[in-house]
Amino acid sequence: MHIRTYREKLMTTEISEKDAAHKAAMKALKEEQDRKVAEAKQSNGLLMVHTGDGKGKSTSAFGMAIRALGWGHSVAIVQFIKGNWETGEHRFFQLMSDQIQFHVMGEGFTWDTQDRSRDIAVAEKGWETVKKLLADPSLNLLVLDELNVAIHYEYLNIQTVLNDLKARSPNLHVSITGRDAHPNLIEAADLVSEITPIKHPFEKGIMAQAGVDY
Amino acid sequence: MHIRTYREKLMTTEISEKDAAHKAAMKALKEEQDRKVAEAKQSNGLLMVHTGDGKGKSTSAFGMAIRALGWGHSVAIVQFIKGNWETGEHRFFQLMSDQIQFHVMGEGFTWDTQDRSRDIAVAEKGWETVKKLLADPSLNLLVLDELNVAIHYEYLNIQTVLNDLKARSPNLHVSITGRDAHPNLIEAADLVSEITPIKHPFEKGIMAQAGVDY
Repeated sequence: MHIRTYREKLMTTEISEKDAAHKAAMKALKEEQDRKVAEAKQSNGLLMVHTGDGKGKSTSAFGMAIRALGWGHSVAIVQFIKGNWETGEHRFFQLMSDQIQFHVMGEGFTWDTQDRSRDIAVAEKGWETVKKLLADPSLNLLVLDELNVAIHYEYLNIQTVLNDLKARSPNLHVSITGRDAHPNLIEAADLVSEITPIKHPFEKGIMAQAGVDY
Repeated sequence: MHIRTYREKLMTTEISEKDAAHKAAMKALKEEQDRKVAEAKQSNGLLMVHTGDGKGKSTSAFGMAIRALGWGHSVAIVQFIKGNWETGEHRFFQLMSDQIQFHVMGEGFTWDTQDRSRDIAVAEKGWETVKKLLADPSLNLLVLDELNVAIHYEYLNIQTVLNDLKARSPNLHVSITGRDAHPNLIEAADLVSEITPIKHPFEKGIMAQAGVDY
């Protein structure tokens, strides 16, 4: 038995009359939206950055991926992460690998502790993957999770990153997360949100936990 | 042909040897995590708030829902939204309705423009749904999207909300989003992130668009 994919399910699920009316309404909405998108100046993909020390940067990008998938858009996520622990988002998205590309860079970075040349090699290899995705005209949203950190540690050159982002497929939205966003990236971005911790449970001695922090 | 559910897929997908090794490792990790969670003081569910005028509050909560689903946790989302337009998150999550409960409150609120008594009735009906979910011991994460706005407009009484949150199932994480979080809610919360707009594309005349803004 084959597992129906999400997209197939979206397209082919048997529908009641009520659902049919709903779908027709949704289709009309979608067509109106497509027309608006085509007409308006936002026909170019947005460059979005979520930075700051607060909690919610990566999850915000994953939530945007969900929104895009809900509209049948094509999405890829590349994660430039510190560690090699498993995450809930990876576990979730790898189960819909026919709908979303999810790349985790190597075994993670050692940061300033150990083998800097290895970290640079991992980041550069990751960026090669990103460059292919940036050039893919069928892709609607590309999430570069924790990319800011790789730039901050100078594993990747900011000017190279900006040049490649600028040369991307014109309608591709890019969402970049991580602390310490580079000022030149903020300058280049269309949308920048800063997430500030007002309260964080780690301050109260509460440990990171599955489903919340990873 | 039945569509296999996400959870079944998680449990039953045929696996290669490599996958088996991976799964065994993941299982060990999960068991270790479960033990840590059971031992540590965070055995009580967290109350989390994402507020501020910046973009990324709701998507952050949806991303956390993805993380939780990735670990096989049980998740519900109740959306206290303004309008009755369709959203990407609703379209996405309703396709996995066997895994996640997704409730949208009525046809949305009319805010301060039209029929305040109707808005209060809609919010109170929504809160009845929330109260049932708060008491469900099998639930791990409850997202109350845009609840802050319903409190801000005094469609719901803050003290009633706080009392019901406090009386919730002890291990239930609750994630609340929306601008203008009430000071008493911030006081009661374990985690508060404020999202500030550094740049927003609406300022440049770029319209809201599917997959990004809804």
